[in-house]
Amino acid sequence: MKPLAEIFSQGEEIVCGQTVDSNAAWLSQQLVELGFTLKRHTAVGDNLEDLVALFTEIAERADCCICTGGLGPTIDDLTAEAVSTASGQPLQFDAQAFAEIQQYYARRNRVMPEANRKQAMLPQSAVSIDNAYGTAPGFALQFKRCWFVFLPGVPSEMKQMFTALVRRQLLQRFPQQPDCLVTLRSIGIGESAIQQCLANFAWPDGVQLGFRAAPDEVQTKLLFPGGFPEAHKQTCVADIAERIGTYVFAIDGLNEQQGDLLEVVASAMSAKRYSLALLETASQGLLAGKCLGREWLTSVEVNLDWGRNTGSWSGIAGAGDLQPIAKVWAEQLKAREQTVFALVQLYSGSAEDYSDKDKTIVLYNALATPTGVVSTKLNAHGTLKHKQNQAALLALDLLRRYLQNKCH
Amino acid sequence: MKPLAEIFSQGEEIVCGQTVDSNAAWLSQQLVELGFTLKRHTAVGDNLEDLVALFTEIAERADCCICTGGLGPTIDDLTAEAVSTASGQPLQFDAQAFAEIQQYYARRNRVMPEANRKQAMLPQSAVSIDNAYGTAPGFALQFKRCWFVFLPGVPSEMKQMFTALVRRQLLQRFPQQPDCLVTLRSIGIGESAIQQCLANFAWPDGVQLGFRAAPDEVQTKLLFPGGFPEAHKQTCVADIAERIGTYVFAIDGLNEQQGDLLEVVASAMSAKRYSLALLETASQGLLAGKCLGREWLTSVEVNLDWGRNTGSWSGIAGAGDLQPIAKVWAEQLKAREQTVFALVQLYSGSAEDYSDKDKTIVLYNALATPTGVVSTKLNAHGTLKHKQNQAALLALDLLRRYLQNKCH
Repeated sequence: MKPLAEIFSQGEEIVCGQTVDSNAAWLSQQLVELGFTLKRHTAVGDNLEDLVALFTEIAERADCCICTGGLGPTIDDLTAEAVSTASGQPLQFDAQAFAEIQQYYARRNRVMPEANRKQAMLPQSAVSIDNAYGTAPGFALQFKRCWFVFLPGVPSEMKQMFTALVRRQLLQRFPQQPDCLVTLRSIGIGESAIQQCLANFAWPDGVQLGFRAAPDEVQTKLLFPGGFPEAHKQTCVADIAERIGTYVFAIDGLNEQQGDLLEVVASAMSAKRYSLALLETASQGLLAGKCLGREWLTSVEVNLDWGRNTGSWSGIAGAGDLQPIAKVWAEQLKAREQTVFALVQLYSGSAEDYSDKDKTIVLYNALATPTGVVSTKLNAHGTLKHKQNQAALLALDLLRRYLQNKCH
Repeated sequence: MKPLAEIFSQGEEIVCGQTVDSNAAWLSQQLVELGFTLKRHTAVGDNLEDLVALFTEIAERADCCICTGGLGPTIDDLTAEAVSTASGQPLQFDAQAFAEIQQYYARRNRVMPEANRKQAMLPQSAVSIDNAYGTAPGFALQFKRCWFVFLPGVPSEMKQMFTALVRRQLLQRFPQQPDCLVTLRSIGIGESAIQQCLANFAWPDGVQLGFRAAPDEVQTKLLFPGGFPEAHKQTCVADIAERIGTYVFAIDGLNEQQGDLLEVVASAMSAKRYSLALLETASQGLLAGKCLGREWLTSVEVNLDWGRNTGSWSGIAGAGDLQPIAKVWAEQLKAREQTVFALVQLYSGSAEDYSDKDKTIVLYNALATPTGVVSTKLNAHGTLKHKQNQAALLALDLLRRYLQNKCH
């Protein structure tokens, strides 16, 4: 019997709909992977009575509850007080939590506002959880049947704390045999096309298939039950990866986490000490921005000319096929910047086509490499932002394919 | 006393985290505007016992509950059955709902699968709600204290039905006077600092204060009760805006929605047909990327030199104060690109300082304008991504301050 888990979110901004509660979904996925049965999500506002009632309810029916929000320094942050009231445990000053809040400000050469002292007042039996990225420490405690974990509502802080600390604590406390989730991460192919690739695959008993269309990739998720034979799992995943083809850029959960498209490219670029010069048009700086902190990106040019005029790139007349131009420019850029690679991303389509969510633009990517120039010609559709993101990702994907020896 | 409302979402994909429940946020916003007090969001999976328990709970404590999901034709769609069990009302064949399902298939020249007949079985007192975009009709009924409205989980169908039909029904059933939410949007100042600015403000009765720290701004939220005198509201908001100061870039909910920082800048730039040339360093293309589709951004340069060497910008020696350099470069850029404005964003701090979440970098922004150069010197801290985003936003904010006549 798997332990029962719930997710609880606190905040007027969630209950009143100003914020979509993406924390609840993220945490649920993590708990499913740890072998919990997820029973309920609840969100309430910053109201002491509601919070107390809810903690009391959950304490009776769940084995574990992850709570987010309400840990801030302001008067509407009531979580610790509500837990104290519900559980009958007085609030106590936690010296370690306070020292960490003070350090947060000291490192930034700022004076800690008096209001932040409140964040170090925790219920008596609570164990504090260090927040390396913000001022609000988390805490955890047992209340009746349920192990409650309280984390800040800011997604980046919450995720970092869960991954770095909470995950391990939960594994110790709830030692059920977790299921094994393997995720095949792909770009350039849609969910239904992947489903067709897998149509006549013979699924082993107990393996669950799921899909997730994220903004930057499509994920094919295979949930293997705890105890599924390792060798069989490996061959099963390899077979599915081959069916989906060169669109797969990473497989997570098998041996190591390979990360997203940028991580996959960055690992290879750093390991081989490669360098890249980049020319962006449709993506307008987005790809350079994504590569922040990557030492292998040594030169960036953003060319906005295209959208301004009626269809020529700096004197090159006519719309039509830009692939030859992209290739020549990539070679020139590589020679000029003296880099190992040069990536040029052009597009055809007017400014109106770009802005109109019902129109398509054509992306022309060219990558100059030590062994010649490779290129792709692909469509981007949807909103302005969606096209921009596709332009950035599909250009980067050409580099990924070359680095993984997957250019045809 | 305002009526109390809850949102309820059904579906394994929500409880297990495969789908982020954006319906709940959307519906909450609608209900807030209609004058409800939102008390709780709940999501559970496709489990009859949980559903029955939950409907029974909600029927006792809420005046209105909007429920999504669980109306489909398959065996895991249990909503009608659960409502029937909880309320003791038998399921009955609804001829009108059935006719509408049949028409849906007829219009598409498709045969209605036998399974869809189930969707026309509604609890005895239910009023069906036509679904013009799908097969699942909605329904509504009174159960104890609560008026329940059941809608499909597919967001497009749900929104269409709410907007076309449910909204009007709710206004008839709950004729309260809606509240008015005013949001002061600021950048460059934190939540606790704002709270200090407002410390000795004399709050009028019934006005609720809240804060929200979004990634790109801090929001100060004032909820005025329905019927609060308009003139008093205006002076109250003006007073609070003045206390917070020039950090406030927009006020939403008073007259019109002004939008986020980029929208505020974009409106002014477009209205006056201004043009901008941009040089980015710390933000590395992110600001250009955010400005996609804005015709007033006519030239972008991304300079990556700084991170590469030991502390000089293209031959300008020494770290120290970069403000004079930023100003000169802004004037040069404006002259070269012949734009109305030129914005230069430099920083000091090594590549290590930039990457280290505990270290601070100093941002130097300079804006060349038709009336001279203005500049800011500000700190950025936190993770690489956080610093980058701060660099982009604080540079843009200098332009905003000039456009709003808020440069000192």
